[in-house]
Amino acid sequence: MPIIALLTDFGVQDIYVGVMKGVIWKICPDAQIADLTHEILPQDITAGALALWGAFSFFPQGTVFCAVVDPGVGTKRRAIAVQTRYHFFVGPDNGLLWWAISENDVIKVVELKNSSYFLPNISSTFHGRDIFAPVSAYIAKGTSIDEFGPEISVDELVKLPPLRASFGSQTVVAQVIHIDRFGNAITNLRRKDFEAWLRDAVCHQWFATIKGKSFESLNRSYAEVSEGETLLLFNSYDLLEIAVNRGNAAQLLGIHKGDQLEVRKKEVK
Amino acid sequence: MPIIALLTDFGVQDIYVGVMKGVIWKICPDAQIADLTHEILPQDITAGALALWGAFSFFPQGTVFCAVVDPGVGTKRRAIAVQTRYHFFVGPDNGLLWWAISENDVIKVVELKNSSYFLPNISSTFHGRDIFAPVSAYIAKGTSIDEFGPEISVDELVKLPPLRASFGSQTVVAQVIHIDRFGNAITNLRRKDFEAWLRDAVCHQWFATIKGKSFESLNRSYAEVSEGETLLLFNSYDLLEIAVNRGNAAQLLGIHKGDQLEVRKKEVK
Amino acid sequence: MPIIALLTDFGVQDIYVGVMKGVIWKICPDAQIADLTHEILPQDITAGALALWGAFSFFPQGTVFCAVVDPGVGTKRRAIAVQTRYHFFVGPDNGLLWWAISENDVIKVVELKNSSYFLPNISSTFHGRDIFAPVSAYIAKGTSIDEFGPEISVDELVKLPPLRASFGSQTVVAQVIHIDRFGNAITNLRRKDFEAWLRDAVCHQWFATIKGKSFESLNRSYAEVSEGETLLLFNSYDLLEIAVNRGNAAQLLGIHKGDQLEVRKKEVK
Repeated sequence: MPIIALLTDFGVQDIYVGVMKGVIWKICPDAQIADLTHEILPQDITAGALALWGAFSFFPQGTVFCAVVDPGVGTKRRAIAVQTRYHFFVGPDNGLLWWAISENDVIKVVELKNSSYFLPNISSTFHGRDIFAPVSAYIAKGTSIDEFGPEISVDELVKLPPLRASFGSQTVVAQVIHIDRFGNAITNLRRKDFEAWLRDAVCHQWFATIKGKSFESLNRSYAEVSEGETLLLFNSYDLLEIAVNRGNAAQLLGIHKGDQLEVRKKEVK
Repeated sequence: MPIIALLTDFGVQDIYVGVMKGVIWKICPDAQIADLTHEILPQDITAGALALWGAFSFFPQGTVFCAVVDPGVGTKRRAIAVQTRYHFFVGPDNGLLWWAISENDVIKVVELKNSSYFLPNISSTFHGRDIFAPVSAYIAKGTSIDEFGPEISVDELVKLPPLRASFGSQTVVAQVIHIDRFGNAITNLRRKDFEAWLRDAVCHQWFATIKGKSFESLNRSYAEVSEGETLLLFNSYDLLEIAVNRGNAAQLLGIHKGDQLEVRKKEVK
Repeated sequence: MPIIALLTDFGVQDIYVGVMKGVIWKICPDAQIADLTHEILPQDITAGALALWGAFSFFPQGTVFCAVVDPGVGTKRRAIAVQTRYHFFVGPDNGLLWWAISENDVIKVVELKNSSYFLPNISSTFHGRDIFAPVSAYIAKGTSIDEFGPEISVDELVKLPPLRASFGSQTVVAQVIHIDRFGNAITNLRRKDFEAWLRDAVCHQWFATIKGKSFESLNRSYAEVSEGETLLLFNSYDLLEIAVNRGNAAQLLGIHKGDQLEVRKKEVK
């Protein structure tokens, strides 16, 4: 039974998500449909991209991810379908799919052009219903993505900053890739990479700085520090995050997307 | 695989919706269940009726819509099942199903009377679980709606105002059918009807008035006007709506359900 | 088609619930997954236990309930699977499953120890994904719960107070088992038990006292009393509840979990 996983910023107060399911089942009646989440903050592409990246690997081979966070709907932004080694991804070409597909062996990317796989009337505001849901359903049904339109190169896709920090022997330079709704500043430094880098060190001590603020250790939870204090921790995506217990780190430290955090090994004296 | 689409005002904090799914699967184990939405404002029948009307046509033939916005639960209001050409609708006879079924070829309406298709103990407060979920499941399983009780005439059903405006050659009279939670005033003037009426005009200019306020053009989104300003637009249901950018149109203009909006063609001079 | 019903305190803003579904379908592709609710207040075990108890009996034989309200995740609290006459329950051994399983003929309880049925890497924070979802999926697939680890006795499980009041001929002593998010104080006095006890009385009058406050009758809904007034009613779980119309009964009367409510028959004079 084919699985289609939905990720949107539509919320669940309206019928948008329900309607997408109706459209899917009209085309592929035996699809299992999973809601990843529909509570991505409206138009927050990086939040959606993170969620998709954090979730996809837990799903069975053949799962079709239909992702719609689409501030450019109705403009000339491309609509795409991506086949990777294990999964399919369908959505707007605005970076939303990027982190998920850049972790995968991409087999093919096509632009969605063939309107015979869309609903008959394409609105200018709801491509989730009119394009992405039906295309996802046809993929789940076994239609080759070649059918949907011309192949395009991965190089042509809209990208987000890499989800990996830059590692030197003595320093790591991480980038803030997302500020979440609580003001937590999420970087592209992954736990695994950081631990590997530390293992190579003579001494396992380090200090990290961002916006003039220094850290010398990691916490495991927000509550480990006093209210209003800053901390560093690896979040549920295993990405390094700058946070404030019951506070807003981005505001407090003046952190913006794209800012750098530098980690430096301490010298053994 | 039969599809049952649920629409309620139960929210998802409680187990009510989950319990309805259990009841359905006990009777019809292979039903696919879709949540249209459970966030209809408590007891807001017209909001539920609009959502059901906006959604039903996207679902496959044979879908059973189980709709429960039921302020009269436990009173003498009828419980009904409706078979239309393509779908089934189950719910209270309080107008909730009206707009959906009035757009359809109704084949038969029955009153739910045969308690052998209900749960053994009928509560006075939760007919969603005790009556509507099991009846929907039996329909999904193939039970004829004749089994559930006596046929009643469409004329006997509780109705809402028509979901179509009145068209004259020079004027349209639309009615406010719903004030939503944001204070947007939704009318029964449909985009298609309005565009057809305009096409017949020598001149495509018009002005609309409601409560002494005049409009001479449509907007495509709330944000096209300044904060606090009124606008007219066709909403996601393609119904004409009076709105205020980041404000409450019903309060600002004193609009109530049943109020009229008049559109008049401009004379060519 | 096997059914897995999920109950968590994860909310639906994050991808946690979606990821659990992916994990389940990877193991048991044809599982039907129902969301009981994911809006249990964070770490509120008794709220979760009540919801599970209120819902389970409506689900088909063989349903696997995967329940995760787990403040002790990462500590030494046990993880368990329980087979009862009609259902399976999987979750932490912290009382969450207790009310549901104590109403059932328990066939067997095992501690989840056999990591070959878990995900390869067990996090310290997300056993819903790493342990409870995969074990639930293996049960749905037909794996015997004997496979997961050693049998343990029901006596060894973490328990909650009994979900039954104590009945004497003239008095009932009920216990407040939960304060909900609205401040309603929910007791372990069940409607059925109370009605049976009253039937035995010469006179059907009674009075109830808690924290110095007396009641002599039941209401059917909050709105039957004036705003700010206290009332007694049987709630949607058919448990006696002390409430305040549009107010917080626990705060107003100073009620805490464990407090007693006493009901006494009135003497016939």
